[in-house]
Amino acid sequence: MAKIKNKQETELGFGNKNYSESVRFLNRDGSVNVKRNSIGKHANFDIFHWLITISWTKFIILIVNGYIVVNTIFAFIYYFIGADKFGGIAIGYGLENFMQLFFFSAQTLTTVGYGHIYPNSSFVSTIAAVESMFGLLGFALATGILYGRFSRPKADIEYSSQALIAPYSDHKAFMFRIANQKQNELIEIECQLALAINNPKTKKRDFHFLDLERQKINFLSTSWTIVHPINEVSPILSLTETDLATSDAEFIILIKAINDTYSQTVYSRMSYKPSEIIWNAKFVPLKTNPVGNGTISMNLKDIHLFEKIQESIS
Amino acid sequence: MAKIKNKQETELGFGNKNYSESVRFLNRDGSVNVKRNSIGKHANFDIFHWLITISWTKFIILIVNGYIVVNTIFAFIYYFIGADKFGGIAIGYGLENFMQLFFFSAQTLTTVGYGHIYPNSSFVSTIAAVESMFGLLGFALATGILYGRFSRPKADIEYSSQALIAPYSDHKAFMFRIANQKQNELIEIECQLALAINNPKTKKRDFHFLDLERQKINFLSTSWTIVHPINEVSPILSLTETDLATSDAEFIILIKAINDTYSQTVYSRMSYKPSEIIWNAKFVPLKTNPVGNGTISMNLKDIHLFEKIQESIS
Amino acid sequence: MAKIKNKQETELGFGNKNYSESVRFLNRDGSVNVKRNSIGKHANFDIFHWLITISWTKFIILIVNGYIVVNTIFAFIYYFIGADKFGGIAIGYGLENFMQLFFFSAQTLTTVGYGHIYPNSSFVSTIAAVESMFGLLGFALATGILYGRFSRPKADIEYSSQALIAPYSDHKAFMFRIANQKQNELIEIECQLALAINNPKTKKRDFHFLDLERQKINFLSTSWTIVHPINEVSPILSLTETDLATSDAEFIILIKAINDTYSQTVYSRMSYKPSEIIWNAKFVPLKTNPVGNGTISMNLKDIHLFEKIQESIS
Amino acid sequence: MAKIKNKQETELGFGNKNYSESVRFLNRDGSVNVKRNSIGKHANFDIFHWLITISWTKFIILIVNGYIVVNTIFAFIYYFIGADKFGGIAIGYGLENFMQLFFFSAQTLTTVGYGHIYPNSSFVSTIAAVESMFGLLGFALATGILYGRFSRPKADIEYSSQALIAPYSDHKAFMFRIANQKQNELIEIECQLALAINNPKTKKRDFHFLDLERQKINFLSTSWTIVHPINEVSPILSLTETDLATSDAEFIILIKAINDTYSQTVYSRMSYKPSEIIWNAKFVPLKTNPVGNGTISMNLKDIHLFEKIQESIS
Repeated sequence: MAKIKNKQETELGFGNKNYSESVRFLNRDGSVNVKRNSIGKHANFDIFHWLITISWTKFIILIVNGYIVVNTIFAFIYYFIGADKFGGIAIGYGLENFMQLFFFSAQTLTTVGYGHIYPNSSFVSTIAAVESMFGLLGFALATGILYGRFSRPKADIEYSSQALIAPYSDHKAFMFRIANQKQNELIEIECQLALAINNPKTKKRDFHFLDLERQKINFLSTSWTIVHPINEVSPILSLTETDLATSDAEFIILIKAINDTYSQTVYSRMSYKPSEIIWNAKFVPLKTNPVGNGTISMNLKDIHLFEKIQESIS
Repeated sequence: MAKIKNKQETELGFGNKNYSESVRFLNRDGSVNVKRNSIGKHANFDIFHWLITISWTKFIILIVNGYIVVNTIFAFIYYFIGADKFGGIAIGYGLENFMQLFFFSAQTLTTVGYGHIYPNSSFVSTIAAVESMFGLLGFALATGILYGRFSRPKADIEYSSQALIAPYSDHKAFMFRIANQKQNELIEIECQLALAINNPKTKKRDFHFLDLERQKINFLSTSWTIVHPINEVSPILSLTETDLATSDAEFIILIKAINDTYSQTVYSRMSYKPSEIIWNAKFVPLKTNPVGNGTISMNLKDIHLFEKIQESIS
Repeated sequence: MAKIKNKQETELGFGNKNYSESVRFLNRDGSVNVKRNSIGKHANFDIFHWLITISWTKFIILIVNGYIVVNTIFAFIYYFIGADKFGGIAIGYGLENFMQLFFFSAQTLTTVGYGHIYPNSSFVSTIAAVESMFGLLGFALATGILYGRFSRPKADIEYSSQALIAPYSDHKAFMFRIANQKQNELIEIECQLALAINNPKTKKRDFHFLDLERQKINFLSTSWTIVHPINEVSPILSLTETDLATSDAEFIILIKAINDTYSQTVYSRMSYKPSEIIWNAKFVPLKTNPVGNGTISMNLKDIHLFEKIQESIS
Repeated sequence: MAKIKNKQETELGFGNKNYSESVRFLNRDGSVNVKRNSIGKHANFDIFHWLITISWTKFIILIVNGYIVVNTIFAFIYYFIGADKFGGIAIGYGLENFMQLFFFSAQTLTTVGYGHIYPNSSFVSTIAAVESMFGLLGFALATGILYGRFSRPKADIEYSSQALIAPYSDHKAFMFRIANQKQNELIEIECQLALAINNPKTKKRDFHFLDLERQKINFLSTSWTIVHPINEVSPILSLTETDLATSDAEFIILIKAINDTYSQTVYSRMSYKPSEIIWNAKFVPLKTNPVGNGTISMNLKDIHLFEKIQESIS
C-alpha cells in the first residue's frame, strides 16, 4: 500500500469526471458504486464471485430449488421412458408413478440408492448412471462453494457511525474509529485515506491522499482512532462544513490487514459523506477494564460514542 | 514489482537472441510463446496445471469419457469372472449380461448401490470393494479440480484492441486502456510496461522497461489509460512507425492486482505488436453516467473506441 | 513488518491505558487477552474461526453429537409420520420402531442406503430426500473444516521457557531463543520485539519497539537466539529487575515466517513477563552434531537450557 | 527477500559451528539436512506435512492399507457380535461369514450399501452407523489430501548439474543456469546466493551473501544464467579450487517465484559443493529457435551443457 503522491494528478481509479448529481463511489458496506455493462462477446457475469457473495438465504434457496428442479427433470425423463422399465415400482396412476420416479431420482442423485425401486432396462440404467455421476459432481461442487463461503477471508471491521472533525494539536483533525467485530485477531493493520472532491475551477473531480498521524498498527485488539491532521499540507485546511457538502466530498477509506485464523490478507473499504461527519466533537475514550488473569474487556458498540465540544473550529 | 533498471542489460527472462523471423513472446491472451521440450528423466507435463487450464468443454468430455472407460474396464473384469457370481442378475445373452455388469459397475463407482444386483462371491466382492474405494477418491478428486477451476484467481482484464501513439504534453506518448471485465473488484492494480526490440547494431534483442505516467491505482472501477510518455529518456523517442515494424518491436504488459472476492493476487499479461498500434489517434473519453443512488454506469466495450487526430506526429 | 518508530507515540494496537492491576496482552500460547463484547445487531461470533481453532477433542465430540442429534430429530419425524409408511420394517413396540427409524435415518444421512427399510409413501420419501441432501452437504462441510484444520498454516515455534538478560559486548542484552517444533521448514523468519510498560510520570502504558541485533534469518533449521542489545538507545537501559516488575513490563514478540510445505506466511506471537526473565544468565550453546551424509542433528529441548553467570550486571 | 548484510555476522539460520567432518546444509533436491529431535511433551511429527510430502507410491500404499485395516477391524467387530445379527447373510463356516462381513464393512465404509446384507439388530446398526460416518469423513479427508498434493505450489526448477567458475569481464565469476521444468509459467523470479565456508582463523563457519549481476527477472520462459561476479568485494576473490574444497564450502541458492497457475509464491532451494563446480568452463549458449507463429522452442536438457575454455584463471 505504498502511497503514490502526485499533487497534480492523484488517481484512485474512479475517473475524474465531475458529475452533475451527487455520487458516492463506495457504499458504507464497502461495495463499489460502479456498474460495468457488457454487450457482445464478453459476458461479465462471474458465477463464482456471485455464488460466494450472495446472502446465505439466497444461497440456500438456490441449492434447494436446484435440487428440486434437477429431480423433476429426471423424473419426467424416467416417466416418459415408462415406469414399467423399473423394478420394484408399484404401477399406479400417472401422478403416483411420477412421484415414485421423482423419489427414485432423488435417491440416485444423492447416491443413497435404497434399491426398492431400481432401473430394469439398459436405457433407464444409462440415465441413472449419468444422474448419479452428475449428482456426485454437483453436490461436491455445492459443498465446495459452501466451504468457500465459510472460509472466505473477510475483515469484519466496525467503523464509527460518524467521522469527526475536531481541534487537534495546533490545528484540527479529521478522525474516525474502527474495531474488529469478530473473535479472530487482525494483525498488521494498515489504513489509507483518500478524498474525492469536486474542483469548482477545473470542473473535475480531484483525488487527494490524506496523511495520517499513524498509518499502521500491529494489532487491532481494542480500537484504533485514525487521525488525519488538518495542517498546512492538508488539502482540506481551508474548507468549511458547507464547502465539503457543496463540493460533494467523499472520504474514502482503504484498510488492509492480516486475518490471523488463516494468515490471509484481508481488505475493508468504507466512505464517509459530508452528512456523516460531525464537526466539533470528540470520541468518548473507550472503556477497557481488566477482568482478571491479565485479560482486558471492552464493548464493541462504544466505538460509536462521541460528545460535542464547546470550543468552536472554523 | 520493483523495477530493475539497468540501461545496459535489462533482462525480462526471454533471452536476448535476435531471431531471423518475427517472434511474439506473449500472445494477446497472455500465454507465453515458448515451448520447453524435455527428453529423458524429467517429464515436464504438469497434469494439475493442465486440468486447471483446459477449456470447460475439454474438461467435461474428459470427465464423462473417464467415467465410461473406467466402468467398461470393470464391466469386462466382472464379465470374465462370470455373471453367475452375482446375485439378482437376470442371466441372459453375453451382451445382456455385460450391460447389467456395466451398470452394476456404475452403481458401485458412484456408491449409489441399489443392490438389485450384488456381488455374491468373495472375488467379485473384492473387486467391487476396490472399485467403490477408487470411485470415491476419483470423484472427489474430479470435484476438487472442478472447484479449483471455479475458484482459480483470474484477472479478466479487457485491453483496448489497439494501443495508440499520440501527442501528449510537449511530446507524444504510447498509451492503451484497460477495464475489468467481471463484476468482482480489482484493487491495488500495478502495471509494468516493457519493450522487446531488435537492435540492428548488436544483432541482439534488447529489453527496455518503459516509464509510466502512473504505475499504480487503487481501484479499477471504471477504466485506466496507461501512458508511457515518449520523452527524452524514452528509448523509443527517435523511432518511427516503420522503425517499430522493421525492428520487430513488442510492447509487453504485466499487470498485477488484488481480486477482491478472495483477496488473491492475480496477474494479467498482454502484448501489442506494431500492427496493433495506431499512430495519431486518441481514446474517446469513457462515458460514465450517474444512474441514481450515487451509482455510476459505464459500457465495457467503449474502452476500445478511439478517433484519429489531425495533428501529425513523427 | 516495517518498523514504525515514533519515539513519542509508538502504538501496538492495545491502547495506552495504565491499568490498576497487572495485565498481560499476549498469553504464552500467543492468544490475545482482550475480550470484545458485542451487544445488539452485530453478533461477533465467527463460527468458522471457532470450528478451525477449537481442540481436536471438542471438534470430534461436536461432529459425533451433531450426527446423533440430527438422526434423533429425523427419527422422531419418521416416528410421528408412522412406521407403517415404511417398507421392510418389522413393526413392533414403540422403541423398537423408533430404533429402526433412527438407523434408517443414519443410513439416509450417510447415503449408505442399504434399502432393507425404505420409504413407502410420498411424505416420508420427501423427508428422506431432504435428509439425504442435507446429509451430503453437512458431511462435506464437516470434512472441509476437518481438512481446513489439518492444512491450516501454523508456525509451531518453541520459545525458550525463560528470556535472559546478560552481559553482551560493552553493555548487556535481552535475549531469548526459538526453534521450529515441527519437521517442516520455516524460511525467511522475521522477528519484531516490543515492550509494553507503565510510565509512572504520564500514568499511561508506553509501547517501545526494541532494536534487534538481527531482524531476519533465511532458515530456522537449528535455533535462533534473538538479541536486543541494551545500549544507549534502548528504552530499558536504566531499568533494574525490580523496575521491570513494578512497571508491569511485557516483552511482546511477533514472528513472521514462510511455512515451506504450502508456501504460506505464518505468524507466531509470545510474550515474556518479568517473572519469566532471568538476570545474569546465558544460554548453553546448542549441541549440533554431524551424523553422517552431511546431516546435522540437534535436540529441541536444549533450547531451554541456560546457566547462571558470575559477572554481575546492574 | 531483502538482503541483510552484516559483514561481521551474516546469519543464514544454520548456526555457525565449524564441524570436524564435511556437512551439507541443503541437499540437491532442496531438502534441509538438519534433524530436530524432540523428547517429551512436544511431539514434532507433523502428519499433514508428512502426508503432503511423501512419494505417490507411499501415499497410495497408505490409503489402500488403511482401507484394508479399517475393514478388517470392523469385520472382526461384526464377527464377534455374530453373523446371525445380519439379514441376507448366508450363514456358513467361520471364514465364509467373516469374508461376508468384511465386504459388508467395505460396502458400509464407502456408503455403497447394496443392502443384500444388512444389519438386523440395534447393536450392529449402531456400529454400522458409526462406520459409515467415519467412512465419509475418512474418505473425504483422504481426498482433501490427494487434492492438496496435486495443488501444492511447487517450483520445479531444473538447475544446471554443475556450477562454473569462469573469466567474466575483468575478473572471473561463479555462475549456474536454471530453467522451469514444467509447462506452467514462473514469473517474478528472484535469486539469493549465499556461501557457507569454514574460517580457519576463527574455527567458525562463516556465511556470506554473494552479490548477483541481476537478482530478479520477470519471466523464466527460457533459461536464466545467474552470475556472481568475483570482484574486489566478493569474499571468494582470493580462494582457489583447493581452498574451496578444504574449507568445506557450500554455495546455497534460494529462489522465489510466482507460479502462474494459481498465483502462488513458490520457493526452490539447492546447493553446490566444491565437487560440483567446474573451473575454467562456460555454458554453451541455449539454442532457442523460432518454430512459426512467433513461437520459440528450446530443449530443457541443454541447460546442463558447458565447454572447457583454454584461458586459465587462478
